Amino acid sequence: MSKTQITAEPGIPQIIMTREFHAPRDLVFRAHAEPELLAQWLGPRDLALVIDRWEARDGGAWRYVNTDAQGNKYGFHGVFHGDPSPQAIVQTLEFEGAPGHVALQTVTFADRGGATLTRTVSAFQSVEDRDAMVASGMDRGARDSGDRLDEVLARLQAT
Amino acid sequence: MSKTQITAEPGIPQIIMTREFHAPRDLVFRAHAEPELLAQWLGPRDLALVIDRWEARDGGAWRYVNTDAQGNKYGFHGVFHGDPSPQAIVQTLEFEGAPGHVALQTVTFADRGGATLTRTVSAFQSVEDRDAMVASGMDRGARDSGDRLDEVLARLQAT
Repeated sequence: MSKTQITAEPGIPQIIMTREFHAPRDLVFRAHAEPELLAQWLGPRDLALVIDRWEARDGGAWRYVNTDAQGNKYGFHGVFHGDPSPQAIVQTLEFEGAPGHVALQTVTFADRGGATLTRTVSAFQSVEDRDAMVASGMDRGARDSGDRLDEVLARLQAT
Repeated sequence: MSKTQITAEPGIPQIIMTREFHAPRDLVFRAHAEPELLAQWLGPRDLALVIDRWEARDGGAWRYVNTDAQGNKYGFHGVFHGDPSPQAIVQTLEFEGAPGHVALQTVTFADRGGATLTRTVSAFQSVEDRDAMVASGMDRGARDSGDRLDEVLARLQAT
């Protein structure tokens, strides 16, 4: 299993994450686009995830809430730009703990002959916003997410 | 009248534009949010603008088309993140001549005691996308837009 690569250069309001998964492109895309699958892997292992809105179409709204063991809730929401497809899922993202700070997140899926390289680009409105996202521990969430998605994809391919 | 300030630093996938208008914040906001007013000033002077969709609400779609004297058409579209308000208008933006390349555009309106400072931040998915936007002559369009908006605001306040 490959590990998640995270790039966040000083002074650049952007985070780029890549990870290769040992599964076909369509399956990796589905795991990102279908809420029943997404809920099985997105986020850190020690947080519960409830997706309460997921309208995967141009202009559709999405929202999910992470809850920790102490019951603290962390909500995120946004809208989709364009219909999600294996070419790309483009969506806005706002952490409800920092209202008014919005990012644009793009996930692309490249066929690597049975494996799939995912690339996630998050574009922020400012370097400060990007730094706050990094400081929030998003790297742990991203790495956990990748490991959990590996497990989900293995299960889906075993059945 | 102040002039449009445009900042596009090398290697940073972002464009920041600011301009002060001699009009109250609510009026400047309305000129950005209401399609009847927007159509009177947005874009270069030598291009016609037709707004064919403008759903100014969270998840709403927007689209407009610029047409030059030769009949060439340049379409742009996207969706709104959040309901537009004088605090901010946040929208995605895709030039239909470069499909798949999306930016996040945020316009904020600061009250300067009867005048209003607008600040437009465009966050791109890559430096290449940002450079392409700069190379397209967006600075001329932005300066024309600002001058034309000055004229619209003067008319609205004279009546």
